[in-house]
Amino acid sequence: MSDGSERYVVGVDFGSLSGRAVVVRVADGAEIGSADHEYAHGVLDRVLPDGATQLAPEWALQVPQDYVEVLRFAVPAALAAAGVDPAKVIGIGTDFTACTMVPVKADGTPLNEIPEFAGNPHAFVKLWKHHAAQPQADRINAVAHLRGETWIARYGGLISSEWEFAKGLQILEEAPEVYEAMDKWVEAADWIIWKLSGEYVRNACTAGYKGILQDGQYPSRDFLAELNPRFADFVTDKVEHPIGQLGTKAGCLTDEAAGWTGLPAGIAVAVGNVDAHVTAPAARAIAPGQMVAIMGTSTCHVMNGTSLHEVPGMCGVVDGGITEGLWGYEAGQSGVGDIFGWFVGNCVPAEYEEAAAARGLGIHEYLTELAQRQEVGEHGLVALDWHSGNRSVLVDHELSGVIVGQTLLTRPEDQYRALMEATAFGTRRIIEGFNESGVPVTELIVAGGLLKNAFLMQMYADVTKLPLSTVASSQGPALGSAIHAAVAAGAYANVPDASEAMGHSNKGVYQPNPDVAGAYDALYAEYLLLHDYFGRGLNDVMHRLKARKRAIAEGRRS
Amino acid sequence: MSDGSERYVVGVDFGSLSGRAVVVRVADGAEIGSADHEYAHGVLDRVLPDGATQLAPEWALQVPQDYVEVLRFAVPAALAAAGVDPAKVIGIGTDFTACTMVPVKADGTPLNEIPEFAGNPHAFVKLWKHHAAQPQADRINAVAHLRGETWIARYGGLISSEWEFAKGLQILEEAPEVYEAMDKWVEAADWIIWKLSGEYVRNACTAGYKGILQDGQYPSRDFLAELNPRFADFVTDKVEHPIGQLGTKAGCLTDEAAGWTGLPAGIAVAVGNVDAHVTAPAARAIAPGQMVAIMGTSTCHVMNGTSLHEVPGMCGVVDGGITEGLWGYEAGQSGVGDIFGWFVGNCVPAEYEEAAAARGLGIHEYLTELAQRQEVGEHGLVALDWHSGNRSVLVDHELSGVIVGQTLLTRPEDQYRALMEATAFGTRRIIEGFNESGVPVTELIVAGGLLKNAFLMQMYADVTKLPLSTVASSQGPALGSAIHAAVAAGAYANVPDASEAMGHSNKGVYQPNPDVAGAYDALYAEYLLLHDYFGRGLNDVMHRLKARKRAIAEGRRS
Repeated sequence: MSDGSERYVVGVDFGSLSGRAVVVRVADGAEIGSADHEYAHGVLDRVLPDGATQLAPEWALQVPQDYVEVLRFAVPAALAAAGVDPAKVIGIGTDFTACTMVPVKADGTPLNEIPEFAGNPHAFVKLWKHHAAQPQADRINAVAHLRGETWIARYGGLISSEWEFAKGLQILEEAPEVYEAMDKWVEAADWIIWKLSGEYVRNACTAGYKGILQDGQYPSRDFLAELNPRFADFVTDKVEHPIGQLGTKAGCLTDEAAGWTGLPAGIAVAVGNVDAHVTAPAARAIAPGQMVAIMGTSTCHVMNGTSLHEVPGMCGVVDGGITEGLWGYEAGQSGVGDIFGWFVGNCVPAEYEEAAAARGLGIHEYLTELAQRQEVGEHGLVALDWHSGNRSVLVDHELSGVIVGQTLLTRPEDQYRALMEATAFGTRRIIEGFNESGVPVTELIVAGGLLKNAFLMQMYADVTKLPLSTVASSQGPALGSAIHAAVAAGAYANVPDASEAMGHSNKGVYQPNPDVAGAYDALYAEYLLLHDYFGRGLNDVMHRLKARKRAIAEGRRS
Repeated sequence: MSDGSERYVVGVDFGSLSGRAVVVRVADGAEIGSADHEYAHGVLDRVLPDGATQLAPEWALQVPQDYVEVLRFAVPAALAAAGVDPAKVIGIGTDFTACTMVPVKADGTPLNEIPEFAGNPHAFVKLWKHHAAQPQADRINAVAHLRGETWIARYGGLISSEWEFAKGLQILEEAPEVYEAMDKWVEAADWIIWKLSGEYVRNACTAGYKGILQDGQYPSRDFLAELNPRFADFVTDKVEHPIGQLGTKAGCLTDEAAGWTGLPAGIAVAVGNVDAHVTAPAARAIAPGQMVAIMGTSTCHVMNGTSLHEVPGMCGVVDGGITEGLWGYEAGQSGVGDIFGWFVGNCVPAEYEEAAAARGLGIHEYLTELAQRQEVGEHGLVALDWHSGNRSVLVDHELSGVIVGQTLLTRPEDQYRALMEATAFGTRRIIEGFNESGVPVTELIVAGGLLKNAFLMQMYADVTKLPLSTVASSQGPALGSAIHAAVAAGAYANVPDASEAMGHSNKGVYQPNPDVAGAYDALYAEYLLLHDYFGRGLNDVMHRLKARKRAIAEGRRS
């Protein structure tokens, strides 16, 4: 096949802190070259770029121009690294964090780029982990249940504060002038395609999972009016737009975007997609029962099913949400790698940093090495993994972290391991919810940055008692985007065919150890007790603590 | 009075990590000179001095020779620092941590100094915070309640695992050969007096609070036999001994001890005493309603009352336990400064250490400075102060620490402040127990190392809503011991007279701020909910976690 007729596609994965471009061979999915580019502004969670405008707790914003910079720097760098003639690239696909929302004018200009709004937090991108719209989400859920809205069951009974409607309602109620000026409320996943192709196409995945589009319908005008009379036309004014199916072509690369990327103008640009969902085909894991866990700062769980079931607390079930023709189920954990990152950034003393450096290890590797010498339960701790809230099962971002069992002899590696375990228990709780609802999970396939931690992977296999496979690519989402680009460009008839040819996984590389799994059962039972105590209203202390914190922060700003 | 006829006394305070000697003027309590000496072996909580014998979790041992070294080094150094002619010293008094127990031969030789026992953990001093006798304490409590033993109410309904009977029963059951070889089971408070004076005198304070001596009686032989038939003669064989009242003379300084200390042989040696109890006269706070809190690694609360009341969960009430003629009440918190120390040792990143150093501050001062900028509740956290168990109210050393409310934005100063608050809430809970039982607390007088933290002191005043005074001496216990030495030497008729002349306090230097106190009420309510949930059997997760940890440690050692 090296006859010079090789064809390539580019996949670009937009994460929480950076974007990554990968050049992939169409024939077999081989990843030829890649490059990263960090967002200059990262996540805004304390102050706007003006350095003056303070943000309240639970806010998380981004700057859209940072995404364009990924196209300008990472794509050319990946092409250069691959040593591939750009003329041989036939398509580009992207995936994004979700639900990450950009408020824009009719021409796609983000509101924060308009001078009068540059100091208004609501004019910025609301990143997926912006959790300040919980009061709005609470009302959406209460009103939906009161009115008996049927769509709520498609989301496990709860709409998240992370999604389009809660975040949109927050803008209306806190910054009506921004809401008024906003012509469209656009997923970043679609906004970047708009920048690449000049076409605004609303992808079926986020429209379904985050935009409450079910059976071709959005929530009704009556429902919206009951939330707030001024919100009645939210769907028609700000959201509704033609839908594009995953793997289809949104448009062709514009001259401007060709200039940014170094790719040929006119090549296929695939419909926008989401990092988690796009990974399933990259891992060749689109069969029912194969749950793909994309484990990074947070974890997304995606799995196809042949029929529709309503799983309490799932994120959603969407027809064609992962693969056309199947019901796509999604669940998630709001914080996983983020929690480990918080811990090493805030809770690990200098002597550990020094010992790690002396050994030539990263701090995560060093703590993992210490933690894995322990037997299950030896640290005497149990933790809840809700530092960034709970996205599935409880669907409540007013929840927060807990650690129980500290003594004067508790060491950093003890707490680190307890936090690892908490995330594994969180995944098990989600899987049990699926199993109990007629959507059995038979295999766990892990993608994302955390799969390089072999101890964590073995822990997940032991805790869930499932065989654990790993995506073979170190850049699963970008490969998945490239697969969609190949289909959009017509190189394959559909995504399953492209997945079969281009996707890769390491099958069953971690198998549950029955002895260890049994010991984890006891700790998991403790996790469940605390999960229900703090998460199901027996003690709403977390809600009260956050309400107090918010009131103080608001008092400070006013 | 500087006519050269001045008389002096020496007080020696034996703490958890070091001993401190102070030379005090008899006339007015002026502290002329002092010196510290650290215990060479510190606290043994992982391994014996042989470097080979591992200790299980919850163990805490010491080496008695370390105490003698304090006499040899700190006393002469204090005399030298004072520039006082040793011939003018008329007496020496001491105070000790309690319940800290030495297993000895009939001549006072500690068993760990006998070669055959040098590698046996049970031959060492069991420090107050040795918490591995909880199973024995549980049985003592269960059997006492079953039999309707009246003395149990004098201890708030619960005997602690820290005390003489639980620790003694642990030796019998885990190391019968040590129990057999042990002629006496001696409070370290009395053992050091034995070393100074050659006389073994059992002081009324520890005999009452830790040795279950009430109305002249110990628990009966029948009761002991029911715990374990081989334990039937524990009182008569190992414990019972003539009692000395506080402030009386145990004997005269031996030639050997004169050689160690540089003091004149033959001067008065006061009956042994306890660090907390001896501080009340040093703070001139022996009136009913004046609660003295000695805040260091742990906190002890002592207060006199005119009549006998039974306070649930108190450590004990002893006739003459603090001051002859009054009922002495005691309560405590097992971990306070220890928790802050654990936190800075295990949970604070390098950048904080560096920032503190750059400012010329200690890490505790730096964290306090950051923490005190916050409003009450701004950190969104609530913690339980049970890292070293709960000594009063719940009296359960199988309990452990909890922190609730962590998010990805939680900073070290947030957690540090939450732990400070937890200890203040723990004190408030104890005070409320006294108030509800007919022993009202009207003033809080703080002694100990933590009183130098003004923010913490203000927090305690705000949380307890009490005026807070501080002991004027920076070495309250040693001054208190010196006061008892002065009485033992006949310089004053009794301890109240000596306290009036030699004790000092700063009255009401911290007053509760009503606004802040109101805000703390809300957090205290959260503390109480968690206190009862985790502490009163609603969720025994802490017990189960410790049982599992212990089983693993035992499996490792066997």
